[in-house]
Amino acid sequence: MGFTIAQKIFDDHRIGTPDADVHVLRLDAVFCHEITTPPAIVDLQQRGKDRVFDPARIKVVIDHVSPAKDSKTAMQGKILRTWARRHEIKDFFDIGANGVCHALFPEKGFVRPGYTVIMGDSHTCTHGAFGAFAAGVGTTDLEVGILKGCCAFKSPATLRVNLTGTLPRGVFAKDVILSVIGRIGVNGATNKVIEFGGPVVAAMDMESRMTLCNMAIEAGGTCGICEPDRVTVDYLWPFIRDEYDTPEAALADYGRYLPDEDADYDQVIEHDVSDLSPMTTFDYRPDNVKPVSAMRGTPVDQVYIGSCTNGRISDLRIAASVLKGKRVSDSLRAIVSPATPTVYNQALEEGLIKIFMEAGFCVTNPTCGACLGMSNGVLAEGEVCAATTNRNFNGRMGKGGMVHLMSPATAAATAIAGTIENSPLFEG
Amino acid sequence: MGFTIAQKIFDDHRIGTPDADVHVLRLDAVFCHEITTPPAIVDLQQRGKDRVFDPARIKVVIDHVSPAKDSKTAMQGKILRTWARRHEIKDFFDIGANGVCHALFPEKGFVRPGYTVIMGDSHTCTHGAFGAFAAGVGTTDLEVGILKGCCAFKSPATLRVNLTGTLPRGVFAKDVILSVIGRIGVNGATNKVIEFGGPVVAAMDMESRMTLCNMAIEAGGTCGICEPDRVTVDYLWPFIRDEYDTPEAALADYGRYLPDEDADYDQVIEHDVSDLSPMTTFDYRPDNVKPVSAMRGTPVDQVYIGSCTNGRISDLRIAASVLKGKRVSDSLRAIVSPATPTVYNQALEEGLIKIFMEAGFCVTNPTCGACLGMSNGVLAEGEVCAATTNRNFNGRMGKGGMVHLMSPATAAATAIAGTIENSPLFEG
Repeated sequence: MGFTIAQKIFDDHRIGTPDADVHVLRLDAVFCHEITTPPAIVDLQQRGKDRVFDPARIKVVIDHVSPAKDSKTAMQGKILRTWARRHEIKDFFDIGANGVCHALFPEKGFVRPGYTVIMGDSHTCTHGAFGAFAAGVGTTDLEVGILKGCCAFKSPATLRVNLTGTLPRGVFAKDVILSVIGRIGVNGATNKVIEFGGPVVAAMDMESRMTLCNMAIEAGGTCGICEPDRVTVDYLWPFIRDEYDTPEAALADYGRYLPDEDADYDQVIEHDVSDLSPMTTFDYRPDNVKPVSAMRGTPVDQVYIGSCTNGRISDLRIAASVLKGKRVSDSLRAIVSPATPTVYNQALEEGLIKIFMEAGFCVTNPTCGACLGMSNGVLAEGEVCAATTNRNFNGRMGKGGMVHLMSPATAAATAIAGTIENSPLFEG
Repeated sequence: MGFTIAQKIFDDHRIGTPDADVHVLRLDAVFCHEITTPPAIVDLQQRGKDRVFDPARIKVVIDHVSPAKDSKTAMQGKILRTWARRHEIKDFFDIGANGVCHALFPEKGFVRPGYTVIMGDSHTCTHGAFGAFAAGVGTTDLEVGILKGCCAFKSPATLRVNLTGTLPRGVFAKDVILSVIGRIGVNGATNKVIEFGGPVVAAMDMESRMTLCNMAIEAGGTCGICEPDRVTVDYLWPFIRDEYDTPEAALADYGRYLPDEDADYDQVIEHDVSDLSPMTTFDYRPDNVKPVSAMRGTPVDQVYIGSCTNGRISDLRIAASVLKGKRVSDSLRAIVSPATPTVYNQALEEGLIKIFMEAGFCVTNPTCGACLGMSNGVLAEGEVCAATTNRNFNGRMGKGGMVHLMSPATAAATAIAGTIENSPLFEG
């Protein structure tokens, strides 16, 4: 039997001999944000271990609550900031330079095919879009990672999802991943890596692949992962041009991490998207998925476009194309959070910020706290939000609130209608 | 003896005979935001008095925490929103349409010479810039205002401040009001109206006058007030052109509220600004004022440009003129909050947002919570902020934090330097 992408990465990074099924891996990067890293920093300090394995491999950002909303979050930022300065961590992105971690770090070229990455954040799986093994971890693992640059993982059983057919117009990566989660369930990939492949993934840009991988965790997956290909290389080229003579050379090298044809998958699913329509969630689980057409007319109090799932420039372009010349319904409020300063500047340049403002959106600085009810868009008891985020758990965006997950196109159309509505981009 | 502006407004609005020194005034407008109005709404409901005196005279906005940062602030917004809908209050500015109350309401033409205005907010005095009597009130007065459209005030003893001389280049209204407060002290105008006049005020635009009046409360003043003149009429013309045939006619009518030459002032101060230099505060009282030159080199952790004092388009233009082509210091973070969507759109149009972004500023949506440590820029213990806001009380922007008040020009120069610094606009 051949090997999966994750198995190849494990082989490449394993330290010592596996203990039963547990593999200790060398880490290429440890990502940090201001919510989960300060507890690790404080604990390391208290244990007399205020050290970092390699300041160049640690990337740090304030993103969940930006700027600080109260004394507690201000102190979280301060702990992170002083720690980064103390250890001369160059890549610390403070207020103003900061953006949503899972959008910012790829944009900075911090993730490469074959990399191992950990972060104290469940949507770390996003970075698998680059053919990396990237996993969210708890405080203890994060501390070991910061201190020693390694992390222990179980053997990566892999669920291969072949996305076949042709994505209809007006149907997006978000709809695809919602349909996959709806099919396999919230435990469908528990303790597994989801390896996405097939012609639909091959045709996707990196941002769409990040949307796919971002939600692997919503089906229980440790990581989502895509095959590194020419699209990957082209995205990364500005960052790797010193390492390789040509994109072709990079592509050939990254070929090391392609899955073997006879790879040892735990399970393989064929998922044809040709008849897929825009999807949304109902109730409080990400696998409670329905076509938008079945939810049309559901009243909404707030529309939120942003987050590590769908706050990138391609997402804003799609939403703006629906919103252009329109106004959001008086019955709701609409918020857009461009994911990073680069996304914001690009949106500024392309006139998208203007379109959002003219439509009546509140345009926040780059941040993601609304998604988990932490800042900049928390729901009140009994309120309903149409959101491009990744989790619709009970109270996720605020106690007593309901979240319907959807694509930026659907969210924009819903903002105009005041109730859940398909976008005019979809002609199904 | 003749009458002051405030006395003339009182005479115009008095209901019944004064009881000793207490005058009940008819209100032209009651302004509301989401922090202080919900307690009044809930109390009125509980007392079976869920009514409003006139929905057209009540103006409502969410501004302090926007978008909501937690369940509590989300609920404050919801209470305000459902109340506004229930009573058909047309002028409710929800997330997206919202901005800082004391910038938004003047911009919408809601304040006129001779008006009486109350709000549950201490910087309601800002609106006196239009020749109105505008005062911050507590919950009980607010409830009576909402229910009956009247409010009781003591006789308006007036401190007249004649601003004379010529304002030097690079010295602004903010520096003037800081110097006035430094001179008369935080109790210098307690229970008095401060009537600003003289050639310096006559030469100021409305935004500068609002900055002046905004900080009257920092010297204890009930209200700051300026004489309505052609500048006032020109600002208001889009909103009053149906009421008057010509601006001259409006000007003549508003002349009713000009102070008499022999007005009965409690005190008159001549304040020559010709030798004034940019000012800033030290320590924790707004009357602890020094020239910026005496504070140069003071390290700063955060720069904040915004608030009801200095978040208007003229403020952003000045700051951007200093920042253009520059970067903020790596040693601090910088935040700008355009005060309203109109200010934001104008700044977008003029390329100011781009200048702020390129300088490394975090550009928030219109909001003002940072000023009082409530959202979007709260300080951690031990941090120092250079701010264009109006209060430097101990812990105002976050427990254990220090605030140095200054103009947008000085704040921008400080952002670049990393320490308190005069702007290059000042050549003194």
